[in-house]
Amino acid sequence: MTAEVFSSFEADRILLELRRRRPLVHCLTNDVVQEMTANVLLAAGASPAMTVAPEETRGFAKIADALLVNLGTPTRDRIEAMQAAVAGAAEGNTPWVLDPVAAGVIPWRDGVIREFLRRKPVIVRGNASEVLALAGAGTGGQGVDSTDASSAALEPARRLALQTGVAVCVTGEVDYATDGRRTLAVPGGSAMATLVVGTGCSLSALVAAFAAVHPDPVEAAAAACTLAKRAAEYAARQAQAPGRFHSAYIDGLYLAPNFE
Amino acid sequence: MTAEVFSSFEADRILLELRRRRPLVHCLTNDVVQEMTANVLLAAGASPAMTVAPEETRGFAKIADALLVNLGTPTRDRIEAMQAAVAGAAEGNTPWVLDPVAAGVIPWRDGVIREFLRRKPVIVRGNASEVLALAGAGTGGQGVDSTDASSAALEPARRLALQTGVAVCVTGEVDYATDGRRTLAVPGGSAMATLVVGTGCSLSALVAAFAAVHPDPVEAAAAACTLAKRAAEYAARQAQAPGRFHSAYIDGLYLAPNFE
Amino acid sequence: MTAEVFSSFEADRILLELRRRRPLVHCLTNDVVQEMTANVLLAAGASPAMTVAPEETRGFAKIADALLVNLGTPTRDRIEAMQAAVAGAAEGNTPWVLDPVAAGVIPWRDGVIREFLRRKPVIVRGNASEVLALAGAGTGGQGVDSTDASSAALEPARRLALQTGVAVCVTGEVDYATDGRRTLAVPGGSAMATLVVGTGCSLSALVAAFAAVHPDPVEAAAAACTLAKRAAEYAARQAQAPGRFHSAYIDGLYLAPNFE
Repeated sequence: MTAEVFSSFEADRILLELRRRRPLVHCLTNDVVQEMTANVLLAAGASPAMTVAPEETRGFAKIADALLVNLGTPTRDRIEAMQAAVAGAAEGNTPWVLDPVAAGVIPWRDGVIREFLRRKPVIVRGNASEVLALAGAGTGGQGVDSTDASSAALEPARRLALQTGVAVCVTGEVDYATDGRRTLAVPGGSAMATLVVGTGCSLSALVAAFAAVHPDPVEAAAAACTLAKRAAEYAARQAQAPGRFHSAYIDGLYLAPNFE
Repeated sequence: MTAEVFSSFEADRILLELRRRRPLVHCLTNDVVQEMTANVLLAAGASPAMTVAPEETRGFAKIADALLVNLGTPTRDRIEAMQAAVAGAAEGNTPWVLDPVAAGVIPWRDGVIREFLRRKPVIVRGNASEVLALAGAGTGGQGVDSTDASSAALEPARRLALQTGVAVCVTGEVDYATDGRRTLAVPGGSAMATLVVGTGCSLSALVAAFAAVHPDPVEAAAAACTLAKRAAEYAARQAQAPGRFHSAYIDGLYLAPNFE
Repeated sequence: MTAEVFSSFEADRILLELRRRRPLVHCLTNDVVQEMTANVLLAAGASPAMTVAPEETRGFAKIADALLVNLGTPTRDRIEAMQAAVAGAAEGNTPWVLDPVAAGVIPWRDGVIREFLRRKPVIVRGNASEVLALAGAGTGGQGVDSTDASSAALEPARRLALQTGVAVCVTGEVDYATDGRRTLAVPGGSAMATLVVGTGCSLSALVAAFAAVHPDPVEAAAAACTLAKRAAEYAARQAQAPGRFHSAYIDGLYLAPNFE
């Protein structure tokens, strides 16, 4: 099976819709990337909400336009808050995205991830090692870093999508989004993005933001990936090292699609 | 009633006093903006302390020069640490500032905010939607983003200050500081600051730093707002998008009042 | 006793070894500097893992190449996670580094720090005030800021190393690493690094990364300090204020030793 390269024109159309509607994206993410995630959403044109108290997350996820659940640094309290948020999302018909950080490395975490996957996110977004682990076809990466190419995870991603009914977005040198039947590919980007923590985690937040404004999860994920790839390419033209690349990446999200 | 535009000359005088004394500002703030808040204080000329263990916050707040309590991501543990800190501030006569993030959105959080407001901060600093909600005159913004203009919150801010005996600083296109009798206005700044997470939360930390070195809370708040507005204007001259604006904003705080 | 200035040539040799092996550094650090710490490790050539759940830290520290325990914002949950990680490090023979943030300020924290010091890290890395407090020769700094010169802590650092069997790295205007017998000195750097939160805490993570690839803890610590000093000097040539200094510092870690 082949993958269809997603149209930049279509991606831009969905980006403009995101900016028109400015969706409120409730993020339950890991401690390391909260600031990065909020700044990525703001630069792209969405509105972040980062509240984490179990007393608040159910109500907040219900009224938000999208929800992100990222398991980068799960603790018992945070998992409780995430479960409440997922319940609120179900009540409010809020689309939500699961980021299974470091799936396949620690069994305890894998159990947590699988339980969330069963609760029906719209999209799961991970790197190749994470998607291979979820599909039962790999052994996990090195911490948060993938040790596999995204193309190696494409068939397992399709199988996982068909099994679960959840669209799968696997990102890397080429990003893919699939529901098991249709697969979109997004090439490009810059390897330097892997040297800035949170580019992957915040991409999951962007996927949630796009899912808030576009009903097709495969196209929504591909549009988010397109924005991130274009921003990384812009940053790579502006900066030769990861410190200034980080700032320029945020700038690229804001300036897209009309780079200087 | 009108507001008096605060003198830049007077603001600079208070800023130089802050740099001379380098106040230690104990920040109990939300998870998203801790790094930003510490960097803002360091760039402006203050010294941050970010300790959050309930075992430590009482003692730390007692010896600090000022305390910030920001309710952006309250959890039971963090609220316990904040209550201990406020008790320590009372023992040490440490001025403290309350940032009522997202007041008016979730009833549970509003209850927490009102309890802290009753414990007599020197200043409460929020956006228009938050101040309107505290004054019983609005319905809350969208997450952390204000949906109201700061000028619309000016009369409610004055009423709130008179009712509570707490100076109120409401920030937006124009920033205001009032004790209900005297009102200072600070115009200027840049709309791009709203696309960088933590510019508002860290402004509350600056208000605390200025309150540590200047006895009049209305003037202290206005001096902090003046610094932030000038730094944002500097950043807007340096950067066209929020990534590099962020770095340039920190630079502006450091370089003020002598921009290149 | 005098200190020997550490050879840049030798430091570069160890840096190249780090890049060849790309060690996985498990960081249990404070809430303020998690993003900075991960970005510093990535830029230098290591791979960060930031997991904090007590259910995971033992297993993760066992398989990691090095472990960092930083006590900047300790809470009961985090301390429990750190204790589990230290147990895992012992099982896996994983070298670990202790950062005793703000030692000497609050007795409760000092007790926590001393307990970790007894559990035999390979290296303890602190500023002068922290090392003086651990050696029983000082009264602590102002929050996280040192109020003492690093040279004043050199003899106490040597005594502390001999007493505990733990190498001591004390950083400041000149950085020192000692096991009580041999002492290496690393001069240089930039005072502006003290205006960016996390430069010290992330240096401890770098020390852990170097300890993963070099068996001599004194040389490993000195090599990490050399990299940080050179990156700060690069940043000081690129930037006149702390916002852009921060980005340029990350760049310097990445570009070292071949600056443009």
